[in-house]
Amino acid sequence: MLKTGKEHLEGLRDGRVIFIGNEKVDDVTTHPAFKNAAKTVASLYDIKHQSEFRDVLSFDEGGERYSMWFLRAKNKEDLRKRTAAHKKIADMSCGLFGRSPDHVSSFVTGMSTNPSVFDSDKYKFGNNLTAYYEHMRKNDIFATYAVIPPQAARNPEFYEKQNLPIPTLRVVREDDDGVVVSGMKMLATSAVFCDEIWVGNLIPLDPNQVKEAVTFVMPCNTKGLSLWMRQPIALNAENEFDSPLTWKFDETDVLVICDEVKIPWEKVFVMDDAILAREIYIKTPAHCYGNHQSNVRFWSKMQLILGLCSKVAKSTGADQIPAVREVLGRMSAQEATISGMIYGQIEAAEEWPAGYMTCNRRMMYAALDWCTENHSALIDELRTLCGGGVFQMPGNVHVMHDENLRADFEKYFQTPQMGALDRMKLFRLAWDLVGSEFAGRQQQYEKFYAGASFIIRNHSHRETNWEHFDGIVDNFMSGYDVPEHS
Amino acid sequence: MLKTGKEHLEGLRDGRVIFIGNEKVDDVTTHPAFKNAAKTVASLYDIKHQSEFRDVLSFDEGGERYSMWFLRAKNKEDLRKRTAAHKKIADMSCGLFGRSPDHVSSFVTGMSTNPSVFDSDKYKFGNNLTAYYEHMRKNDIFATYAVIPPQAARNPEFYEKQNLPIPTLRVVREDDDGVVVSGMKMLATSAVFCDEIWVGNLIPLDPNQVKEAVTFVMPCNTKGLSLWMRQPIALNAENEFDSPLTWKFDETDVLVICDEVKIPWEKVFVMDDAILAREIYIKTPAHCYGNHQSNVRFWSKMQLILGLCSKVAKSTGADQIPAVREVLGRMSAQEATISGMIYGQIEAAEEWPAGYMTCNRRMMYAALDWCTENHSALIDELRTLCGGGVFQMPGNVHVMHDENLRADFEKYFQTPQMGALDRMKLFRLAWDLVGSEFAGRQQQYEKFYAGASFIIRNHSHRETNWEHFDGIVDNFMSGYDVPEHS
Amino acid sequence: MLKTGKEHLEGLRDGRVIFIGNEKVDDVTTHPAFKNAAKTVASLYDIKHQSEFRDVLSFDEGGERYSMWFLRAKNKEDLRKRTAAHKKIADMSCGLFGRSPDHVSSFVTGMSTNPSVFDSDKYKFGNNLTAYYEHMRKNDIFATYAVIPPQAARNPEFYEKQNLPIPTLRVVREDDDGVVVSGMKMLATSAVFCDEIWVGNLIPLDPNQVKEAVTFVMPCNTKGLSLWMRQPIALNAENEFDSPLTWKFDETDVLVICDEVKIPWEKVFVMDDAILAREIYIKTPAHCYGNHQSNVRFWSKMQLILGLCSKVAKSTGADQIPAVREVLGRMSAQEATISGMIYGQIEAAEEWPAGYMTCNRRMMYAALDWCTENHSALIDELRTLCGGGVFQMPGNVHVMHDENLRADFEKYFQTPQMGALDRMKLFRLAWDLVGSEFAGRQQQYEKFYAGASFIIRNHSHRETNWEHFDGIVDNFMSGYDVPEHS
Amino acid sequence: MLKTGKEHLEGLRDGRVIFIGNEKVDDVTTHPAFKNAAKTVASLYDIKHQSEFRDVLSFDEGGERYSMWFLRAKNKEDLRKRTAAHKKIADMSCGLFGRSPDHVSSFVTGMSTNPSVFDSDKYKFGNNLTAYYEHMRKNDIFATYAVIPPQAARNPEFYEKQNLPIPTLRVVREDDDGVVVSGMKMLATSAVFCDEIWVGNLIPLDPNQVKEAVTFVMPCNTKGLSLWMRQPIALNAENEFDSPLTWKFDETDVLVICDEVKIPWEKVFVMDDAILAREIYIKTPAHCYGNHQSNVRFWSKMQLILGLCSKVAKSTGADQIPAVREVLGRMSAQEATISGMIYGQIEAAEEWPAGYMTCNRRMMYAALDWCTENHSALIDELRTLCGGGVFQMPGNVHVMHDENLRADFEKYFQTPQMGALDRMKLFRLAWDLVGSEFAGRQQQYEKFYAGASFIIRNHSHRETNWEHFDGIVDNFMSGYDVPEHS
Repeated sequence: MLKTGKEHLEGLRDGRVIFIGNEKVDDVTTHPAFKNAAKTVASLYDIKHQSEFRDVLSFDEGGERYSMWFLRAKNKEDLRKRTAAHKKIADMSCGLFGRSPDHVSSFVTGMSTNPSVFDSDKYKFGNNLTAYYEHMRKNDIFATYAVIPPQAARNPEFYEKQNLPIPTLRVVREDDDGVVVSGMKMLATSAVFCDEIWVGNLIPLDPNQVKEAVTFVMPCNTKGLSLWMRQPIALNAENEFDSPLTWKFDETDVLVICDEVKIPWEKVFVMDDAILAREIYIKTPAHCYGNHQSNVRFWSKMQLILGLCSKVAKSTGADQIPAVREVLGRMSAQEATISGMIYGQIEAAEEWPAGYMTCNRRMMYAALDWCTENHSALIDELRTLCGGGVFQMPGNVHVMHDENLRADFEKYFQTPQMGALDRMKLFRLAWDLVGSEFAGRQQQYEKFYAGASFIIRNHSHRETNWEHFDGIVDNFMSGYDVPEHS
Repeated sequence: MLKTGKEHLEGLRDGRVIFIGNEKVDDVTTHPAFKNAAKTVASLYDIKHQSEFRDVLSFDEGGERYSMWFLRAKNKEDLRKRTAAHKKIADMSCGLFGRSPDHVSSFVTGMSTNPSVFDSDKYKFGNNLTAYYEHMRKNDIFATYAVIPPQAARNPEFYEKQNLPIPTLRVVREDDDGVVVSGMKMLATSAVFCDEIWVGNLIPLDPNQVKEAVTFVMPCNTKGLSLWMRQPIALNAENEFDSPLTWKFDETDVLVICDEVKIPWEKVFVMDDAILAREIYIKTPAHCYGNHQSNVRFWSKMQLILGLCSKVAKSTGADQIPAVREVLGRMSAQEATISGMIYGQIEAAEEWPAGYMTCNRRMMYAALDWCTENHSALIDELRTLCGGGVFQMPGNVHVMHDENLRADFEKYFQTPQMGALDRMKLFRLAWDLVGSEFAGRQQQYEKFYAGASFIIRNHSHRETNWEHFDGIVDNFMSGYDVPEHS
Repeated sequence: MLKTGKEHLEGLRDGRVIFIGNEKVDDVTTHPAFKNAAKTVASLYDIKHQSEFRDVLSFDEGGERYSMWFLRAKNKEDLRKRTAAHKKIADMSCGLFGRSPDHVSSFVTGMSTNPSVFDSDKYKFGNNLTAYYEHMRKNDIFATYAVIPPQAARNPEFYEKQNLPIPTLRVVREDDDGVVVSGMKMLATSAVFCDEIWVGNLIPLDPNQVKEAVTFVMPCNTKGLSLWMRQPIALNAENEFDSPLTWKFDETDVLVICDEVKIPWEKVFVMDDAILAREIYIKTPAHCYGNHQSNVRFWSKMQLILGLCSKVAKSTGADQIPAVREVLGRMSAQEATISGMIYGQIEAAEEWPAGYMTCNRRMMYAALDWCTENHSALIDELRTLCGGGVFQMPGNVHVMHDENLRADFEKYFQTPQMGALDRMKLFRLAWDLVGSEFAGRQQQYEKFYAGASFIIRNHSHRETNWEHFDGIVDNFMSGYDVPEHS
Repeated sequence: MLKTGKEHLEGLRDGRVIFIGNEKVDDVTTHPAFKNAAKTVASLYDIKHQSEFRDVLSFDEGGERYSMWFLRAKNKEDLRKRTAAHKKIADMSCGLFGRSPDHVSSFVTGMSTNPSVFDSDKYKFGNNLTAYYEHMRKNDIFATYAVIPPQAARNPEFYEKQNLPIPTLRVVREDDDGVVVSGMKMLATSAVFCDEIWVGNLIPLDPNQVKEAVTFVMPCNTKGLSLWMRQPIALNAENEFDSPLTWKFDETDVLVICDEVKIPWEKVFVMDDAILAREIYIKTPAHCYGNHQSNVRFWSKMQLILGLCSKVAKSTGADQIPAVREVLGRMSAQEATISGMIYGQIEAAEEWPAGYMTCNRRMMYAALDWCTENHSALIDELRTLCGGGVFQMPGNVHVMHDENLRADFEKYFQTPQMGALDRMKLFRLAWDLVGSEFAGRQQQYEKFYAGASFIIRNHSHRETNWEHFDGIVDNFMSGYDVPEHS
């Protein structure tokens, strides 16, 4: 089934408990902090119903139509289809709405190619996972995840030493119907716009963190669940012209607080197993599926950055200066770097797991590392190209609503290359990517999307066949030895 | 005379014309976009009246008391006094309010040590400059400057080709009383809080830009002068706790638009001389005085950054991790780098101009280049140390005003190292330096404070005695030659 | 025809004129500065005759067997074959012998897919090019090129002003048999080991540099041609163990000096056309074919670097330190970055020129830019991992030839992870990549292989479809406008 | 007493045992690997006898004349004298001979201001230290040090586990006359040219490394002591013109191997105390004195780099290109950065230890960190400015010894800005700083001079008054609180 945007928005009015500070939010589809982003989410559902994009964004299986991110890839052509679908969704927000419906769905789809990983000695949750995959695709579910502990709570020992309550979410009780959990999980981006939240542990737990080692899914209106919104950024925007990205792309981040929340067994995927809690992402293509989406999403953003660099330079004729052309050529090479690494993941795809094909994992991590390392600098290039221009604009677009001021505005702010209003529109957009609080959140997000840099590099280290590279050196050195005594 | 804060604020209610978009601002001391920053400015005047800081911030000359930035340095001890005064003022805003009253005053004070530069064949404006210096210090004037043309208007030729009006400010008429100017100048930071605006050309003009080559000063309420405020950032702040820097340190940036503004001759310093318009800053210590202030201001900010790095790390115990300690040690070294370069400017001061002593200019430019090159990366380090913590806070501090939420907040958000509220206060402050729109403006500001990077480096190139360094190579090579034919 | 190494070496004893300083070299296959590198070249011919690599390194066409780099790619499978052949050749020298026989051959093969480019109004040289392509592949020719003017001679004007002879190669005369050229061209890497030298202009000429605008090919023993070798590095190596890369991979760089050299017309490809002289590389896939080889070659080197990083870390147990593992993970990601970009060039290949398929050009330039930007830093990582270890080795391997010293050596220099001799062998190899003069030449080479960085970025700029990226911004901004007056 | 160069060289012929591989070196003053560097050392002694530099390089105390680096600074003027002396010595080798006689002497001089640190509960070695200081300055001793364990041997545990001999130097026996030591120490730079070797532990030992915790000094010809030279670089140089730095500035690095070496008690400074073994450098100004010398030495090198950048750019007229001028301006700013930090250390000097004055320690570490972080990039800038020019030179200067070749050389290699021979001389010098093995050793040396980067940053961390910087944040935050409930 392919939901419509309207259907999705209706589903959000389900009694979910959301707080901004001490304010309880009644309806995310109408609240000023959320309503425009909610429309953005709806548009991601509606686009699938446009005939032009139907085949890009969905596929048939067993007579049913599913969103493309539920496709389990059996060959390179399937991988290309997945990539194209991610790209179309990402383009809808210029890559600025990262936790779109194709993100967590891809994790679950990846898991579904190898559900036996969920069957341990003690628990057989493989069928739960398969059932959840079927449920997701059938109902076109938008899920997010909350898979890291609160900052500072990674090591519960410190809390125990001081007799402080451990804040991180853990199982407090279990019975025949399911498990009861309490505590806090981070950082459920988009949760206010989602149907369900996947809770788990993406970062390795300490082996004795048994009670924290639970993985499950729950609807956003589950009893006992509160969503605490971080400071909403959309409230900074007075109108779309002056803050076009802030206006509609604040995907929101939410602290998930559970107070005695009951999870039925069929929605549990890992229990009491600190190692497995992490390995489900790694021993299945889940992490690769999900982060390939992130690579592609970044690519869309990179294209926006590149277009802005070009247009900002053109707005003042700077694109004719050799040094600026060099910068533009380099930025274009950056776009070709990330897209090259994405295409390369398909050309060098792996036959894994049995019967399926997965994007090249090392290249996916390389792309992830590249995005994380370079985002700040890429934005800094755009910032540099903007120069003081971002401050050389009137306080807001309402200058157009006063005849005299408008005349001055159009006279003084035009350049030989661009009219005043077009230039203001362009620089306001650029500012929303380099300088506004929205931009600030993006910079923080990209830096920590996949965790601290060592986390990504450890993934890269893990997937590397070191024998191969050591062997190159060994093989070379085997060709010569200590010379004869002369 | 040393003004009080109250006196200064009263002076701002003088009928000046300020627009935010299409809104005309009546009173900067009460308007929500300006009032808290206005109080910050007032505090910079009041501090001089505190006995504890009286000798740091002012000096006696001829029986009068003047602000320390009007001191013309005759020896290293005078330089130390100037530096200490700048530091105290900068510390009042943690270096976040750059165009404080000691900035442009320092330019003028620098000029006043060598007023003969203003006497050209055609015009003898040296006495005007001296008189203005006397006026400034006597009335404790807070002046800003607008010394660059609008972006894209640096080359008026393009406008002429297309028969477009040239937007940059220029002399349109002159008579016995003075000159009449029209057009736009950038980017008068703090102008809404100032008494007067210095208008000139800090960037080299084309030699035939004769009519643009005018330098003068005017009160902020001059007839025909409008100040167009860029988008106010302070409006994003709902309260001080959640946005402590935004709240009171938006120093504002203003586009200066003159429509037939009359400037009396005694307030004109350069006229019809494209070369001299620039050289007044370089052939006097003006540029060095003013930018030494900027070095010192950055030092204050660096100290805030360092303190935040330390406290953020401590809030989660991360300061005990060796890799984090290394980062902290490196950040401390950065603080010692900028302070070292500031102290070095005094130890290696130059005897120039005749009878005066000036901070070492090459070291001042080196510090300026260092600040410009490194600011983004310094902020990025703090951003990295913050991690996801900046998003793991409630939407606003009003969570404290609901009993239940407050209980959850205090339980879940504390760490073994820090209470929940203290931690939130710390992270909100950190966010205001790394992620808010205020932070975004700071990043843009530091990158372009002194113009594009090539401008700073050209200053450095100009002040370098290349013969000296070439001579080192020549001298070395003179010690050997082509060997004998063997 | 596939030459053998022996046949190739015999061809080098052809009377070619080579100078090292004032020494005339008689035979490059025996001279100590060249003989081991000559053997390396021979091995690149012999490997094609090993059955295991026959299909990787050669192909059949019209009943003849040709080296794979002469394959004109009609589909992705052909591109894969070319890439695999380049990789095998590059692996033979771990990417350290860049101007291998597959480099210039690839340029010519690329040209041969579109020979009409060589037909101008005045000259029809298309057939000359086709004939030369046939000649090359038939005789398995190893050609190099000399396609840049001497440093400082790019602008002959300065020489003319001072009445100095213009040093750069140019046509001095022409007659029915051909053209006569004199002057110097840079920097014919490998020329001493080659059959022929392609002379041309890779960097744009000034349109009025007509006489310099000549492109032709000549055998290395042409009358009037002298090859001036830059300082030979191989002479630094006393034995292979202590300097394993220096020993056999100094591919040499040569200044080409022509004194009235006669070139027959059938070997001339461009004449008197400053624009075309450059465009033959760009309007055909020549530049893409040739630089894809360079991408692949760098990939081989990257694999050596990665293997060395791993083995050096293991030699002291440092690979167990988390911070070192992070570095290794990052370096592995670098290897996956360059390989990803190479695979991506195939997945995103272009159907161009008509009837042929070419690697994605923007991605090829992106890879080239990436290699140029990153090589120094990649080597620096290895340098850092080596630490002081590279200096903590005996002066040379002959320590093994004294019984007492050997005993001390084996006792003191072993680590729990590695024996003394193995460790010395490893660190001597690492040093030859990070610290020896050979390493120094590699660092210079990679930085300037494709010219100064702006040259590569201009290629990238040229191949970018800016309308596409501007359109992303325009399209986004078309979705909203000035809000209604409220 | 101030030694002459001749006296110093004579002292080196003392029967010291030096190996290069399996070759035993008889006389360092005549051996081709050492003789020119030995002359460099001699020149550092002779310069003190030139009247022009007598007061720069030596001082009177108690009627005796001592080298300036033995001056214990009581005020800023003394610090200035020390700095000037270091600068003169460093200038003699353009900063390329780091372990000059003023380096270790400065450590000992620093210690001598606070000898009580050497008096522990068990041992009273303070007097030994004072006596050694007196001995050094009286005899104008050139000492080096070996203060780190062999790579991989930092943790002896791994050796013990595998029953391997621990290679690092340790006390094997003690008796009334002294202690007996065996094992290896790293990396006694200049030892072959020194009188004595200080052995100790600059890097923290594990507290239970008791037997390794010995600090002493011994003459270079001590019985049982062997000096193993790493691969000599000077042997690469055929003549001074082609390799001017290699020729005379290979200061050498030596592995110190002790086989039952007896050290008399009066030459022992620390015994059986792993903590104190490190603290003697930190609790006295030793580390600051010694590394200030290193800062100053780097400054000399920076000046050579800057001069070369300027001259290389001028040799082709590139200095007229705006982008190159920007680079030169930036490089000049780098020179002013390091010199600024050196001057700043004096202006902000510390009154410590009691009765003495020491350079600002945090600024000294900041400078050290800056040098370590930036050296590779500084060299890379020079490398970039050189471009392909370094390879566009004849194989050696003997081209001047053949009439015909010389004519061609002078014709083809001149530029309008510089003659052929001058240009070759310049580029050969530049290559010796960016590309030769000598250059490679310098790059490794600067990166590890003070140990891995975390070591320097830990010094910086240790010397930082964190309360001060935390206090800035606390003080700021104390100015506001949770707002009233509205």
